Amino acid sequence: MTATPLPRVGIVMGSQSDWPTMQATADTLTGLGIPFEARVLSAHRTPDETAQWAATARERGIRVLIAAAGGAAALPGAIAAKTTLPVIGVPMEGWALKGLDALLSMVQMPPGIPVGTVSIGKPGATNAALYAAAILAVSDEAVAQALDAYRAKRAQQILDNPDPSKAG
Amino acid sequence: MTATPLPRVGIVMGSQSDWPTMQATADTLTGLGIPFEARVLSAHRTPDETAQWAATARERGIRVLIAAAGGAAALPGAIAAKTTLPVIGVPMEGWALKGLDALLSMVQMPPGIPVGTVSIGKPGATNAALYAAAILAVSDEAVAQALDAYRAKRAQQILDNPDPSKAG
Amino acid sequence: MTATPLPRVGIVMGSQSDWPTMQATADTLTGLGIPFEARVLSAHRTPDETAQWAATARERGIRVLIAAAGGAAALPGAIAAKTTLPVIGVPMEGWALKGLDALLSMVQMPPGIPVGTVSIGKPGATNAALYAAAILAVSDEAVAQALDAYRAKRAQQILDNPDPSKAG
Amino acid sequence: MTATPLPRVGIVMGSQSDWPTMQATADTLTGLGIPFEARVLSAHRTPDETAQWAATARERGIRVLIAAAGGAAALPGAIAAKTTLPVIGVPMEGWALKGLDALLSMVQMPPGIPVGTVSIGKPGATNAALYAAAILAVSDEAVAQALDAYRAKRAQQILDNPDPSKAG
Amino acid sequence: MTATPLPRVGIVMGSQSDWPTMQATADTLTGLGIPFEARVLSAHRTPDETAQWAATARERGIRVLIAAAGGAAALPGAIAAKTTLPVIGVPMEGWALKGLDALLSMVQMPPGIPVGTVSIGKPGATNAALYAAAILAVSDEAVAQALDAYRAKRAQQILDNPDPSKAG
Amino acid sequence: MTATPLPRVGIVMGSQSDWPTMQATADTLTGLGIPFEARVLSAHRTPDETAQWAATARERGIRVLIAAAGGAAALPGAIAAKTTLPVIGVPMEGWALKGLDALLSMVQMPPGIPVGTVSIGKPGATNAALYAAAILAVSDEAVAQALDAYRAKRAQQILDNPDPSKAG
Amino acid sequence: MTATPLPRVGIVMGSQSDWPTMQATADTLTGLGIPFEARVLSAHRTPDETAQWAATARERGIRVLIAAAGGAAALPGAIAAKTTLPVIGVPMEGWALKGLDALLSMVQMPPGIPVGTVSIGKPGATNAALYAAAILAVSDEAVAQALDAYRAKRAQQILDNPDPSKAG
Amino acid sequence: MTATPLPRVGIVMGSQSDWPTMQATADTLTGLGIPFEARVLSAHRTPDETAQWAATARERGIRVLIAAAGGAAALPGAIAAKTTLPVIGVPMEGWALKGLDALLSMVQMPPGIPVGTVSIGKPGATNAALYAAAILAVSDEAVAQALDAYRAKRAQQILDNPDPSKAG
Repeated sequence: MTATPLPRVGIVMGSQSDWPTMQATADTLTGLGIPFEARVLSAHRTPDETAQWAATARERGIRVLIAAAGGAAALPGAIAAKTTLPVIGVPMEGWALKGLDALLSMVQMPPGIPVGTVSIGKPGATNAALYAAAILAVSDEAVAQALDAYRAKRAQQILDNPDPSKAG
Repeated sequence: MTATPLPRVGIVMGSQSDWPTMQATADTLTGLGIPFEARVLSAHRTPDETAQWAATARERGIRVLIAAAGGAAALPGAIAAKTTLPVIGVPMEGWALKGLDALLSMVQMPPGIPVGTVSIGKPGATNAALYAAAILAVSDEAVAQALDAYRAKRAQQILDNPDPSKAG
Repeated sequence: MTATPLPRVGIVMGSQSDWPTMQATADTLTGLGIPFEARVLSAHRTPDETAQWAATARERGIRVLIAAAGGAAALPGAIAAKTTLPVIGVPMEGWALKGLDALLSMVQMPPGIPVGTVSIGKPGATNAALYAAAILAVSDEAVAQALDAYRAKRAQQILDNPDPSKAG
Repeated sequence: MTATPLPRVGIVMGSQSDWPTMQATADTLTGLGIPFEARVLSAHRTPDETAQWAATARERGIRVLIAAAGGAAALPGAIAAKTTLPVIGVPMEGWALKGLDALLSMVQMPPGIPVGTVSIGKPGATNAALYAAAILAVSDEAVAQALDAYRAKRAQQILDNPDPSKAG
Repeated sequence: MTATPLPRVGIVMGSQSDWPTMQATADTLTGLGIPFEARVLSAHRTPDETAQWAATARERGIRVLIAAAGGAAALPGAIAAKTTLPVIGVPMEGWALKGLDALLSMVQMPPGIPVGTVSIGKPGATNAALYAAAILAVSDEAVAQALDAYRAKRAQQILDNPDPSKAG
Repeated sequence: MTATPLPRVGIVMGSQSDWPTMQATADTLTGLGIPFEARVLSAHRTPDETAQWAATARERGIRVLIAAAGGAAALPGAIAAKTTLPVIGVPMEGWALKGLDALLSMVQMPPGIPVGTVSIGKPGATNAALYAAAILAVSDEAVAQALDAYRAKRAQQILDNPDPSKAG
Repeated sequence: MTATPLPRVGIVMGSQSDWPTMQATADTLTGLGIPFEARVLSAHRTPDETAQWAATARERGIRVLIAAAGGAAALPGAIAAKTTLPVIGVPMEGWALKGLDALLSMVQMPPGIPVGTVSIGKPGATNAALYAAAILAVSDEAVAQALDAYRAKRAQQILDNPDPSKAG
Repeated sequence: MTATPLPRVGIVMGSQSDWPTMQATADTLTGLGIPFEARVLSAHRTPDETAQWAATARERGIRVLIAAAGGAAALPGAIAAKTTLPVIGVPMEGWALKGLDALLSMVQMPPGIPVGTVSIGKPGATNAALYAAAILAVSDEAVAQALDAYRAKRAQQILDNPDPSKAG
């Protein structure tokens, strides 16, 4: 999944089964021209490799981390504990409580180690990419322009189809 | 907090502020004659020391671990990720959502790494000690007898005061 | 369902309809080489037989109990009331509130009688077996080794398939 | 708490601490002229005495049972499992989740053994008495008249004080 | 739906679409030999007819009322406001919040007018019939015996199929 | 509470204890120069008078109804069932579930009879008055201007105190 | 979607995907003879056009606004911030939390700017139209009569099919 | 509240009453040496000024925005709609639902416009500052070092006080 230039965003998910949702993150980053790497790693089943991946992310060129998990959803927090890079959490929907558990497990971080949490499920997967782009855009004019273009295009799609009774 | 004999239970909590609740765990273990150690450690602020404490618990003589945390409450899971000793989670109540966040963050562990979660707050703090005792009692007759005695005494207290209108 | 050697774990569920979920408990125990017995019993419809089954579990060689139930989910607590063996509760998902009712009914036990509750539904069914194994492993080296091997294998599966975009 | 005539309602609560709430049940029954008995018994700590109390209620003259409990709140269901007398459940409020746990633990009974659940806390304590009266009134004209009078008086209190800005 | 003898239970539901669930109430009453009548009436769309039906229930021979509704679920309370007969509420599941809204709308009645609420959806539909039977059995020996037989049969079904791995 | 001119808004609340919250409705209407009447009436304890009050509201000159209730909170719906005047519901906070029960009981009305529900508690009490004003302003220019002035003043208060660290 | 006469109701939804639900609003308004316009606009993706549409609604002849949105559901509030016309909010169901998020995001408006919120999903879509009609009916006799007729017809449908066991 | 150097973070809150919570944001930023500005602005009561403040933030030198709000909590989304700067949302606790409403209103943003949401209440206020610092640290070495130092100090505080029974 790694694009050839140095990745600037690291995506990690707790299970292979999160990929159908998180593909929206990858696709959105690709659309914005932002190279990334993507990994499956578990805070609970592979804690050392997870810690290692997070701790070395900055030196691999990564500037923002996106972590997806369901249920107890400790992954974003475990990542955030090992780096000061900004970590974006995406709560997965595919558990009994439909992502409410994952949302609370991600967002309710104790003072000291934040996780910026986005929407549950696929809307969150897209938004995680856009949020990563916004963070990179603080110091990267090209990303800022790509983000502006993305937004303008989405707004125009709405304005071009004002009448809901005529399915686009 | 360490009693002189080799501790058999390890208690860990995410914050000093959890102690007023978790003192019920310590008191109940003491009442059952079970030596323990107690530590403050944070899954997010001191991840390496937390992992180290969990990973070495078995060789320190510990046989059961009790972890208390509030909010995102990753501590029991982080402990469980580094040991195969049974881990008991106690959700702390002192956050906006009154422990529902901590409960879900603890109990909804992914398949592979369980946490046995008990009641929110002080009832859970007492029950964590009793559950640790029940685990030890599988192979320790003295603990089994102490647990039987504890239960019998509690039951008798109820039976001795059958009339609710006469406050004990 | 009873394996020929003396069962060491007793599985009980409130309804035959819980079996498709709880089969994961049975399969995981079998994989770990832990003999068990499994029964359908209801805290509400067969209270005496349930009490009797729990009260005699220890003398049948059982060392850990696993109880699955949905809705009001009184079964684990009813079992725990009649034995000091550790009881693991598995909340079933197949009710209107998707297991939140069963979770709260199991985990919020009053001080005195704990139930160690695991995840809702199938993740919990697997984890109940692993938790039972962890409890047995406190005093049984063979189970401890089987559990270590189980964990290592699961971790390796993740590490062998690091790229989520290449479906395993 | 037992009035001298044969009690017709049995009130049971899981803890002495439920009495300040459940006193409203006792007071309302007294006001309606319905004799009752009241007991503290725990489904988990005194399961045999609880079962015995329920199983013998009918022969003691009792025709309706009221059970109050908090948290896992198994008491009404445990009572209902041992008698076919109608059981009214009152969820107690004094736990972290403010009675939502007790409500779900009581109301979500499996098919076969119902509990008629009323409001959380003090409104429920009053209503449990009124519901017991309604059940007795099916075959007892005196209770039916007392209930009619109670209702009429409460309605009149509202109609006599129509203006909310003039505190009664 | 009216059986020929004088109905003793009145079933009312807020919508024709509740019938597939509430048929379990009708079937269970029929199995117990209890005559009933069943109506569709809405607390909000036909308030006068609803009030009239409730107010005249007692004189039609009815002794217990069962009301099913979803969402705001005012029907049981509206019925209870017009009669002192015991009212059993059954929360319907088929709304966005899966019956949690209906449950709270039914159970949280203000002091003065109780509704005995049972489980959400089909388990509640069966239990409403059994609860009505328990209420009638207070003064009707035949119903008491039918209820005892029903319970014994259900218990035996469980005891006859103890092994969950052998699907009945 | 009735101002001398013909009331244009009718406020009803289920209990005298709702008045401390609902006084904000009265004060806001007074501030906007809108005459109103206020009553305590209960959907469950005084159903006939409640129905009567609602059914005759239009002929008393009332054009909008505001109904406050807690818990099962059937009052707004009961009012709406008896009039086609717009009904605004205000969920009261003072119950165990902090108004979530009242919110769901009001807002989840079945298709056919709407209630326009506003915020829980005091914010909702103020907003109910403003919403009533907005409804009247559809055909009343004076109210429209009063509402514009109210909004402008509130906005100016914010703009006049831009610095949060300097408490106003 | 615009009917030829001047629209009196403006319907806005945050996404084209809300139309299958909101078609019930359009159909109900059409049935009542109330002309309307319908637009897709996003509070977040097209904030300026949304503000503009709301700010100019009154001068386009519109007297009531209906806004549908899911998730964070800011649309009704954003509309209400730019007009004093009454705004009706319809929470969409098609997100992970089944509309509970949208409900809270709409209804919990701060004091100063109300949104009258109706039921989640399709029941709310129908009710939004009826509520808009009730608001218009305050000053429009023709709409008042159409609304009366609508209600009478719906009530008659229920009264014509009293027996739930005979599917209509 | 503006420090003399060009502010790099903009803090906005919906009400003066949010300041006692959000002071933790200001204090934490000050401790990290990050200049900021703080404003009270309302998405609903001052929508134009809010939009203007957000739209001009980048040109005022601001690189990250922090928005606090309670209840419907539209403020972070309204800000995010007008800028591509990263927006951090802090749900306020002081409403009936204890911040759950604000959390859902912030985090469940539709695809296209993300808000990175942090913990409810004071823990979130501190974490918002740390998250802003992490974002700035992507391209600012001094902030990165300040953040490292902050974390190390907090970790050391825990490690220096390992024994929970000895209150620090």
